[in-house]
Amino acid sequence: MTTSPATTTICVINPNSSETMTAHLERTLDEVRAPTTRLRVVRAPDGPPSIESAFDEAQAIPPMLRLVASAETDGCDAIVIACFADPGLHAAREIASIPVVGMEEAALHVAAMLGHRFTILTTRAARVPAKRDHVAALGLEARLASIRPLGMGVLELDAEPARAEARIMDVGRAAVEEDGAEVLVLGCAGLAGYGRQLTATFGAAVVDPATVALKIAESLAVLRLAHSKRGLYRRTGVSERAQRC
Amino acid sequence: MTTSPATTTICVINPNSSETMTAHLERTLDEVRAPTTRLRVVRAPDGPPSIESAFDEAQAIPPMLRLVASAETDGCDAIVIACFADPGLHAAREIASIPVVGMEEAALHVAAMLGHRFTILTTRAARVPAKRDHVAALGLEARLASIRPLGMGVLELDAEPARAEARIMDVGRAAVEEDGAEVLVLGCAGLAGYGRQLTATFGAAVVDPATVALKIAESLAVLRLAHSKRGLYRRTGVSERAQRC
Amino acid sequence: MTTSPATTTICVINPNSSETMTAHLERTLDEVRAPTTRLRVVRAPDGPPSIESAFDEAQAIPPMLRLVASAETDGCDAIVIACFADPGLHAAREIASIPVVGMEEAALHVAAMLGHRFTILTTRAARVPAKRDHVAALGLEARLASIRPLGMGVLELDAEPARAEARIMDVGRAAVEEDGAEVLVLGCAGLAGYGRQLTATFGAAVVDPATVALKIAESLAVLRLAHSKRGLYRRTGVSERAQRC
Amino acid sequence: MTTSPATTTICVINPNSSETMTAHLERTLDEVRAPTTRLRVVRAPDGPPSIESAFDEAQAIPPMLRLVASAETDGCDAIVIACFADPGLHAAREIASIPVVGMEEAALHVAAMLGHRFTILTTRAARVPAKRDHVAALGLEARLASIRPLGMGVLELDAEPARAEARIMDVGRAAVEEDGAEVLVLGCAGLAGYGRQLTATFGAAVVDPATVALKIAESLAVLRLAHSKRGLYRRTGVSERAQRC
Amino acid sequence: MTTSPATTTICVINPNSSETMTAHLERTLDEVRAPTTRLRVVRAPDGPPSIESAFDEAQAIPPMLRLVASAETDGCDAIVIACFADPGLHAAREIASIPVVGMEEAALHVAAMLGHRFTILTTRAARVPAKRDHVAALGLEARLASIRPLGMGVLELDAEPARAEARIMDVGRAAVEEDGAEVLVLGCAGLAGYGRQLTATFGAAVVDPATVALKIAESLAVLRLAHSKRGLYRRTGVSERAQRC
Amino acid sequence: MTTSPATTTICVINPNSSETMTAHLERTLDEVRAPTTRLRVVRAPDGPPSIESAFDEAQAIPPMLRLVASAETDGCDAIVIACFADPGLHAAREIASIPVVGMEEAALHVAAMLGHRFTILTTRAARVPAKRDHVAALGLEARLASIRPLGMGVLELDAEPARAEARIMDVGRAAVEEDGAEVLVLGCAGLAGYGRQLTATFGAAVVDPATVALKIAESLAVLRLAHSKRGLYRRTGVSERAQRC
Repeated sequence: MTTSPATTTICVINPNSSETMTAHLERTLDEVRAPTTRLRVVRAPDGPPSIESAFDEAQAIPPMLRLVASAETDGCDAIVIACFADPGLHAAREIASIPVVGMEEAALHVAAMLGHRFTILTTRAARVPAKRDHVAALGLEARLASIRPLGMGVLELDAEPARAEARIMDVGRAAVEEDGAEVLVLGCAGLAGYGRQLTATFGAAVVDPATVALKIAESLAVLRLAHSKRGLYRRTGVSERAQRC
Repeated sequence: MTTSPATTTICVINPNSSETMTAHLERTLDEVRAPTTRLRVVRAPDGPPSIESAFDEAQAIPPMLRLVASAETDGCDAIVIACFADPGLHAAREIASIPVVGMEEAALHVAAMLGHRFTILTTRAARVPAKRDHVAALGLEARLASIRPLGMGVLELDAEPARAEARIMDVGRAAVEEDGAEVLVLGCAGLAGYGRQLTATFGAAVVDPATVALKIAESLAVLRLAHSKRGLYRRTGVSERAQRC
Repeated sequence: MTTSPATTTICVINPNSSETMTAHLERTLDEVRAPTTRLRVVRAPDGPPSIESAFDEAQAIPPMLRLVASAETDGCDAIVIACFADPGLHAAREIASIPVVGMEEAALHVAAMLGHRFTILTTRAARVPAKRDHVAALGLEARLASIRPLGMGVLELDAEPARAEARIMDVGRAAVEEDGAEVLVLGCAGLAGYGRQLTATFGAAVVDPATVALKIAESLAVLRLAHSKRGLYRRTGVSERAQRC
Repeated sequence: MTTSPATTTICVINPNSSETMTAHLERTLDEVRAPTTRLRVVRAPDGPPSIESAFDEAQAIPPMLRLVASAETDGCDAIVIACFADPGLHAAREIASIPVVGMEEAALHVAAMLGHRFTILTTRAARVPAKRDHVAALGLEARLASIRPLGMGVLELDAEPARAEARIMDVGRAAVEEDGAEVLVLGCAGLAGYGRQLTATFGAAVVDPATVALKIAESLAVLRLAHSKRGLYRRTGVSERAQRC
Repeated sequence: MTTSPATTTICVINPNSSETMTAHLERTLDEVRAPTTRLRVVRAPDGPPSIESAFDEAQAIPPMLRLVASAETDGCDAIVIACFADPGLHAAREIASIPVVGMEEAALHVAAMLGHRFTILTTRAARVPAKRDHVAALGLEARLASIRPLGMGVLELDAEPARAEARIMDVGRAAVEEDGAEVLVLGCAGLAGYGRQLTATFGAAVVDPATVALKIAESLAVLRLAHSKRGLYRRTGVSERAQRC
Repeated sequence: MTTSPATTTICVINPNSSETMTAHLERTLDEVRAPTTRLRVVRAPDGPPSIESAFDEAQAIPPMLRLVASAETDGCDAIVIACFADPGLHAAREIASIPVVGMEEAALHVAAMLGHRFTILTTRAARVPAKRDHVAALGLEARLASIRPLGMGVLELDAEPARAEARIMDVGRAAVEEDGAEVLVLGCAGLAGYGRQLTATFGAAVVDPATVALKIAESLAVLRLAHSKRGLYRRTGVSERAQRC
């Protein structure tokens, strides 16, 4: 038991501007980080207050990319983008050479290892088609039991905890009993913290994307394993605009 | 032959800042517009000079969305986003109620009606994985013969027409003879204008995305048929930030 | 606004023998044709009275192919096959060099651009598996919310308009509310004309295949863009039997 | 060993008009029929001389369907449609209640049980896209190594046996060595008889569709197992036209 | 009617240890075997009493493979593995050169020829994900209507025939009426014998896997057609351990 | 930096009997384990000397499952099955309640996060179809660039290091340059240790499955996240045989 206990710095970027969500995220991750991990949790002050549409994502990405560039410059070992839609993940990997982990991508790949099919709990019904597209883009449709909306927005989940809890337990039950879900993925920040109750009540494995993303980031950092720069994540046409970033 | 010849205004948005590309686009579209169509071709002065990476797309989208909002306010009947990667298409549909047509989406659906399999000609090899993802997201993988890079960037294609032409003919031949392509899709602005020569030489159907997108936009405008606002294109979480757009 | 207003002749072939359906089709299309389009709507007097099975399709195709051959000989610029099952579409493209547009193929590709998922309204439950196969053959399964039968045949829809309307509204509601459809495709001739009511009631985009097919045909004719003759639509083994057609 | 040796009559329908192909087919099948099977091999005198395009198929189907109806009336126990494109298979099942076996469908399902991936040998390159569609329609793409054209038509294969043999061996080698095929499917009538040589030379399993289809037909007849009439093969809209068949 | 009536020996291996199931299997197969088939039905005395989990399969496979090796040595012409999960099928084909037929693989391919979509009736709900994986591995997802559990284990089905019958009819009805199944596959030994009643009541085609597998084995034996040894079924790394089997 | 440094015990099971491979595995993992991880690396003395076929896997699984049961009884926190084919993974999860990580499953999910497409390097050509099936079973086909065999068996790789190295570099080059691989997965034990050289030479990300599996196992143990026991990994039919394990 004498492996080098060198510390690793993981930069966790919340692409929205919310201070309370950021503080909550930091507390959650601090509980599961490795003893050798130093956490740096930041938010985008000029990002939208919450990210609930493609429009929101479009506004959030440029400020987030500036934080990605800073994290690498400042010597971080890996980055987590802490929004379940993984906004700007590909662009972030284009400009970074350290590993960049998306909460959604990491959570769904891990969920696929914990049971045959998973259900994603999300906020609103109108978000379901976009989530379905994300699952398909990752090639994981065969493992999707369902996407179940709570019918509440991000800010409502925060503001009305009693109603939120009742909805979460209802929707979790439907996923498990009606859709055959074996794994539940907590598909928005407001759901963090309900995992233990869902497992205790329904016997499903419950994936909290933020904590899973942190552990994957730590793992990649220790293994010195970053995304390939040969194809999808190679920044092309870059020479003439390199000074911009 | 007495159907109402009411005019239709189509706003064509070039999300990059290039004046020459915008002028070229306008000339091309003017040749194929319906007599009853009024074209308004605009560019994003604060967009990137060309769009060749996910990073470029991220920078291009916010200015483009402002042009989308203006087009609707100004009474346009439909919008074309004139970049073959369809950057920001979903966000544009969230904020617009008039039809928004993406060049890539329209071109690939039409290509799928013209032969069993199509090849997309693109700029650089590193762009191939992203193109493959786009085709998959549209559900059209079964119709993809190949994606063939020219090995030249957007600005090079413009600057070196003789080399560009030689490469285009070489790559077109390989697509048809080696990959079994029946249809060729001209997957970047610099390729417009080579269609006739490719058809004459190889007998393939050749899709020029800009012109196809314009005709689809005209068709939707005449049919008064816009995207549904019930799901993917419904802007959620919007109330608290409506004033921003 | 001075593009050449040359006229274009579109031949619309109804492969069944019904005079009333043909007349209805002509009226519908006349409302949306371009001012420069001359319509020629024909029917197959020796075709079946309606096309509701693979057996019907088999009987309908040979007479329809004779009409396709005539349309090209007579100088038409494009052809629409006006039956939602697209019977004989591949064979028609083998023998024609002008564009041949299938109502179903055109409608489903356009539907895929108007929302994340579409529902096809069809006549009878036993037709659902064949429709599912058609969607799969076009590679559009990921965009299919459901196929919903009305439980009424083509001739019944015509004969009992009040019952038809009630069923159509019921089935449209189920598609939108239970299946998550964002777009409704009116999958048989008897449904034409209910689009406006369905949109007004449920907020879904509604695709009327005949009108969409006409606009795609006009678009292809103007762009001088026909199907490729290099593969699927090349007529093979033809020399020894050329005189037969 | 005392199971009832009741005889079974299998009607094998060649949908083209060729007498020599029909005679050859009869000889081939006679060698592998069960002792209790009575073969009735018929051809369509008014069908096309060979079936090498969608146009040919369209002409072949109506005469073939009349032979299907006769076979059932005449007391046959099962039907084989002896053309590797399975023309009119669905329509035949609509009008027949006895089992109808398609050569292509039966051969590909059996091929999928004999190795991981199969190659279909076909006549001309332009037939490849249609074959690919057939494989996809059966849901067997994952088992397809390749479709390899011989570059010779059906009638040429008959007329030039030495050239045919050389091509078949060349193409078989390429399938096995370059495409990783473990099974070869002889995808047109002219290829029957080369199986033994291909197996001996390349070690691949070789599927002769006619013989496989006969054995499946015999099996279904003995098991008294016919296609379901509840969905795809139910003839709809039939009452008003029942007398036509 | 003078084809050589040479006899064929088919070895049917029940990989569990149950004597009553083995006897029942033998009676069932004896009714449908060809007059020229000699049946040899064996069981694995050291296998598990029933096979209802991946753990059970793991225990069942080594004894079963010894029976496979004996069958070939003893001059059998083909082998049927008589457990609906096809345990050890690939390993069996690695060590055998005579055809090895899996009940599940054969039944599902035949089911796919009898209707558009099939439902598998299985024992317990927890078995559904594994069945879904099997269907996917065969590439037949597009043909799957549903997998319906009876909620009874293999031994319960045997012990409580009245409750079993009621459940089977209930589940069959749900498959046909709610899931659109056209074909029902009797996915465990305890269901054999209910086929006639299900067909009579619901009009669905019903596939009894044991009988179908026997007929496929007889067919392959007569056609002298075995699995390919070039890829998936080639036993690699074998030289140094050849004496072990 | 004060998170509880409680130790975690990870049991790594080599399902073959090789002492040298086991020792090599232990050294490799010791370099990347967390300071808080206690490794217990075991082998199956009664397993096959190497696992290179479905037959080998069948022999390896029962002894391996006994080691799985012991690991849980002995208080381990997670288990890694250290064979790139993941033999017996589902059965292991049925009998264990602590997390069980498969090398192949973990490696491929992580590879999918590091680039658009990965190539698996494997031993022999005949193993390619089985690998392809594994990738499909995980739902990751869209991310597969190719599977490239080295043409050398496990024991040869060990015995001939110079030849092995030359082959590995050749095959890595082909994967990257011809197949477009961005990520290389070292698909058998003999390849461990070549990662750094492959990355340095070709710029691809290289995944060493053993180290990735260990980090995933550590992550799951820290997050107290195990596979769901509600479906695929629930051991059914267990009551009557519980005493056996």
